[in-house]
Amino acid sequence: MYIPTYDDVEQAHQRVAPYIHKTPVLTSTYFNDLTGAQLFFKCENFQKAGAFKVRGACNAVFGLSDELARKGVATHSSGNHALSLSYAAGRRGIPVTVVMPRTAPEAKKAAVRGYGGTIVECEPSTSSREETFAKVVASSGADFVHPYNDPRVIAGQATCSKELLTQVDGLDAVVAPIGGGGMISGTCLTLSSKAPGVRIYAAEPLNADDAARSFRAGHIIADDAPQTIADGLKVPLKELTWHFVSNHVTDILTATEEEIIDAMKLTWQRMKIVIEPSCAVPLATIIKNRDLFAGQRVGVIITGGNVDLDRLPWNL
Amino acid sequence: MYIPTYDDVEQAHQRVAPYIHKTPVLTSTYFNDLTGAQLFFKCENFQKAGAFKVRGACNAVFGLSDELARKGVATHSSGNHALSLSYAAGRRGIPVTVVMPRTAPEAKKAAVRGYGGTIVECEPSTSSREETFAKVVASSGADFVHPYNDPRVIAGQATCSKELLTQVDGLDAVVAPIGGGGMISGTCLTLSSKAPGVRIYAAEPLNADDAARSFRAGHIIADDAPQTIADGLKVPLKELTWHFVSNHVTDILTATEEEIIDAMKLTWQRMKIVIEPSCAVPLATIIKNRDLFAGQRVGVIITGGNVDLDRLPWNL
Repeated sequence: MYIPTYDDVEQAHQRVAPYIHKTPVLTSTYFNDLTGAQLFFKCENFQKAGAFKVRGACNAVFGLSDELARKGVATHSSGNHALSLSYAAGRRGIPVTVVMPRTAPEAKKAAVRGYGGTIVECEPSTSSREETFAKVVASSGADFVHPYNDPRVIAGQATCSKELLTQVDGLDAVVAPIGGGGMISGTCLTLSSKAPGVRIYAAEPLNADDAARSFRAGHIIADDAPQTIADGLKVPLKELTWHFVSNHVTDILTATEEEIIDAMKLTWQRMKIVIEPSCAVPLATIIKNRDLFAGQRVGVIITGGNVDLDRLPWNL
Repeated sequence: MYIPTYDDVEQAHQRVAPYIHKTPVLTSTYFNDLTGAQLFFKCENFQKAGAFKVRGACNAVFGLSDELARKGVATHSSGNHALSLSYAAGRRGIPVTVVMPRTAPEAKKAAVRGYGGTIVECEPSTSSREETFAKVVASSGADFVHPYNDPRVIAGQATCSKELLTQVDGLDAVVAPIGGGGMISGTCLTLSSKAPGVRIYAAEPLNADDAARSFRAGHIIADDAPQTIADGLKVPLKELTWHFVSNHVTDILTATEEEIIDAMKLTWQRMKIVIEPSCAVPLATIIKNRDLFAGQRVGVIITGGNVDLDRLPWNL
């Protein structure tokens, strides 16, 4: 298992810079008053393809040799990684195949196709997905870009907090969502190298708190099929992300579904930005753990803004 | 009738700068591809109190002598002007009374009270509103700050395009919504003085196209009770805004309810920002009048982001 280093992050940043946005950092008097902290929202919802995942996907795609790139890339995902990898491959002009359950939302499928991706459908089960994906790779020789358990992806995601450090001075803490752990691992990679005094909190839905339980137990615990509105955060940690979480995360905080929905709606109302349920989890944990953050300068990673506007959680 | 000049705009900007945001200008590759133009979105949805109206309200409130200010300010509005005047008066620490129909949304009333405003309710009719408002002014001696037919308000709104000119070079046109005409008058005031070659388009709902009909007829035509999703654009022109519209506007373009809702939803989806129906009207008119704007640099005024998230137009 190769553990990426900060050198990899610097290379990644040079590699991906032409294809991504340096996203803005927003502040909110309202949320500062509410939490007693000074919050700095790193807005990856404004990122290309609508989420931070394009950083890791571009680093993987543009790091391939021409020979490997010709065979294309492939992944399995029904979420932002599928969109991001399709965007990245489209920018390089190489084939990309995404294995998606046939039950995935049509909007997501349309977005993948819009970026030039090919979708191969599988049944909505792990066995069908693995079998289908193996066939795709065997026939095409495509490079597998895992959504998070891949050093290239983690080095790419690490460019987000690398930017944040140039945008905000004197941070005391950073809070990021945790699902499979790609974003939090990238955050750990950058901060442990460049700002080791900054505390790193991972924020997780209580309904999918496998990472929090793993953290307490000292080994990976994977849930079978957690149910949460924060659909980007259902997947389990893997060995590479566990390395970063177990070595560098200060604590993992959880929020209930109601707290997540409230924080999401409040962000739309007060900050006028469209954010996904997944990235409302950090704010929800900051609101409920006031003593941990009051009086401090806190970075909050807003991971993405790809939402189905016809199915908003407060209208369901 | 005093017609404000660009000197008034410069004074207004100095006066209001401590109390407002210099809002960002966003761009969107997606909308540039869709329209063939280069669009520059001036994002007043990120403004204090959630809308551009705080510029004019602050200019009126902070321009009062201490003696006049002590008696406070008053207005009638059930929309963004009510919030903005309450915010401005709160920042100066003077009383503010807003006459609102008792049927106005509770969320709007709560927001006015949240900024420290006093609400006096009237029946939802013009006669009740005027009678109630007259009593409020008679008893308090408060200064009446009209939502748009007031030179202080127009000079304040004019600071928006004054900022825009410092943020974007070489504009060919600017498109702003038109209701009572406060924003478009401010836009005319600034551009006619500082960038007279820039074309000025007003964008109006077809269902409330009294300004477009006034423009063609050469005199003010006021509708009785137009019905449109763009609830900020139902009010008629008045003599001061008519002065600017009739002298400086290039043309008034209209959009149907469906086109407005489509443009609003598309903005949320692709730009990840929360905008009101009213400020989707300019984009809707640009999309449908491609030949007018293709190949050009176009400023688009996003006027506000105060939306009832429980009643989104595409879910009604």
